[in-house]
Amino acid sequence: MISEFDVLALGNAIVDVIARAEEDFLVAQKVAKGSMTLIDEARAEAIYAAMGPATIISGGSAANTAAGIASFGGKAAFIGKVKADPVGDIFAHDIIRTGVAFGTSAAIEGPATARSFILVTPDGERTMNTYLGACLNLTEADIDPATVAKAKVTYLEGYLWDPPHAKDAFRKAARIAHEARREVALTFSDSFCVDRYRGEFREMLRERMVDIVFANEHELKSLYETGDFDSALMALRGEAKRAVVTRSEKGAVVIEDRLTIEIPAAPIERLVDATGAGDAFAAGFLFGYTQGLGYRKAAQLGALAAAHVIQKIGARPDRALKDLAAEAGLL
Amino acid sequence: MISEFDVLALGNAIVDVIARAEEDFLVAQKVAKGSMTLIDEARAEAIYAAMGPATIISGGSAANTAAGIASFGGKAAFIGKVKADPVGDIFAHDIIRTGVAFGTSAAIEGPATARSFILVTPDGERTMNTYLGACLNLTEADIDPATVAKAKVTYLEGYLWDPPHAKDAFRKAARIAHEARREVALTFSDSFCVDRYRGEFREMLRERMVDIVFANEHELKSLYETGDFDSALMALRGEAKRAVVTRSEKGAVVIEDRLTIEIPAAPIERLVDATGAGDAFAAGFLFGYTQGLGYRKAAQLGALAAAHVIQKIGARPDRALKDLAAEAGLL
Repeated sequence: MISEFDVLALGNAIVDVIARAEEDFLVAQKVAKGSMTLIDEARAEAIYAAMGPATIISGGSAANTAAGIASFGGKAAFIGKVKADPVGDIFAHDIIRTGVAFGTSAAIEGPATARSFILVTPDGERTMNTYLGACLNLTEADIDPATVAKAKVTYLEGYLWDPPHAKDAFRKAARIAHEARREVALTFSDSFCVDRYRGEFREMLRERMVDIVFANEHELKSLYETGDFDSALMALRGEAKRAVVTRSEKGAVVIEDRLTIEIPAAPIERLVDATGAGDAFAAGFLFGYTQGLGYRKAAQLGALAAAHVIQKIGARPDRALKDLAAEAGLL
Repeated sequence: MISEFDVLALGNAIVDVIARAEEDFLVAQKVAKGSMTLIDEARAEAIYAAMGPATIISGGSAANTAAGIASFGGKAAFIGKVKADPVGDIFAHDIIRTGVAFGTSAAIEGPATARSFILVTPDGERTMNTYLGACLNLTEADIDPATVAKAKVTYLEGYLWDPPHAKDAFRKAARIAHEARREVALTFSDSFCVDRYRGEFREMLRERMVDIVFANEHELKSLYETGDFDSALMALRGEAKRAVVTRSEKGAVVIEDRLTIEIPAAPIERLVDATGAGDAFAAGFLFGYTQGLGYRKAAQLGALAAAHVIQKIGARPDRALKDLAAEAGLL
């Protein structure tokens, strides 16, 4: 079957509002550093009023990955819910102009387009406060079976477990993908997200609803409720068909059955804003994987993309990743 | 008289929508590279639809300068007109959270808050397409005489000549400032702006309505319709009381009567986005000037601020300029 897309990404459609903040601001706002906290509209307004001058850039975890794949020259599509409002227009403009196919109908009524208020501390770590808004309206009806069937990989974000109906959309997409002999990838998104849905996430791995899982070190440890990386990795090897584990400056590990491939992190000059590091890694890996470049090269492309986005404000690449990869001799 | 503000800045209140673009995109859109072109709402929508994924950051020339002065630790105020709409909220949030006093009433009716669609080419040059919107509603009534009288310097942008009534506000502010024995500064803003209002700008200098004028090399040459920098500088010396001329990587020149002070540009690693270079220079200079640090130190602070903002996307500093100046041994 001919593939129209390398990757179809399904996730929350979010615009990021990013400001620098000192550590004591996080303490005053009572937010857990490095995590993603869900907030309501009143809290969103309060945080925005208190935070510093902001940069507004489209985000959303799976959407960032789709944008990254397109930036590598891959064919990507995205499904996610915005409202027909100014912020929704920004999200749609940016993802479409990045070259990602995006046709999910915007909600006419209900809550506003989602925004994540991101606080970047001097160490470059990001702490996210997300108002899900219109994402709450994503349902099974937004999954077009033909699109799923035409994508080599359908990529799903764990954050979809937060809105009430999105996990139905998630499961529908996964089922259609497998019926069409396509693959399904999942990112665990966040260690607190893993904590909320540990049982379901592990069940998905065991049931082989997921062919490739992406996790960072914190999420992996949270999944198996251990502080020991090696034992967590061993547990993952026993449950997941195939996994990509990112470890920030310690690089990444790809595991499949008894195979283990370790890849160093790509060098950076200065960590500016860690927002989107995992999303960019997944973009590079999935681009390489769907091009048949092998795990090692795929992970190197992931490391390159992650290194690029963390040296600037915002989660999306601001240069063509295709060019960066060519300059690095990877493509 | 006690000064409540070091600088009161008066200008167009604009939010920037910034995207990278190739040179041929400028050609296709028929815009003059490096300039500021005024556009209507339909054109704004067309440019936005065609341009790439964007970063949204508050801007406006004089507003950027006010933000820069606050970032140095100076006391700054800003007068400019937004509409009470989402983009206006962004502008107000950012300038207030930067520490600038901003109390101009937002328009309830009429055109939307101004946006400038900025195209950044691979060489780092920026080309601006500005929809003035609510700025058209700035009038004399927005000038609070008490605020002007309490500012050491009232700083005005040449772009205020574009909206129909803003120049009345400009003249009123200048008159009040001088009546209160305060100083008035002006930036020429853009070489095309100089071309539109050359006669009036020169008349203001000769009439001493302006105590300090800021110009870049292109604006200076446009003012005197010559391609020769030295003869333009000589002409400016004859008309202006005091002038600061910026020359990009060639540094800056301060002139007053027979005095000439030349300052080199501050070193940069990579030019990312030239947007706001002149605004940041004016911020550093005016901060130093109002602190009584002398022309040379003031211009060095200007060069430092300019070097900072051109190494990142957007016109406003993303680190405290006070800290950068301390690290550089300038404060």
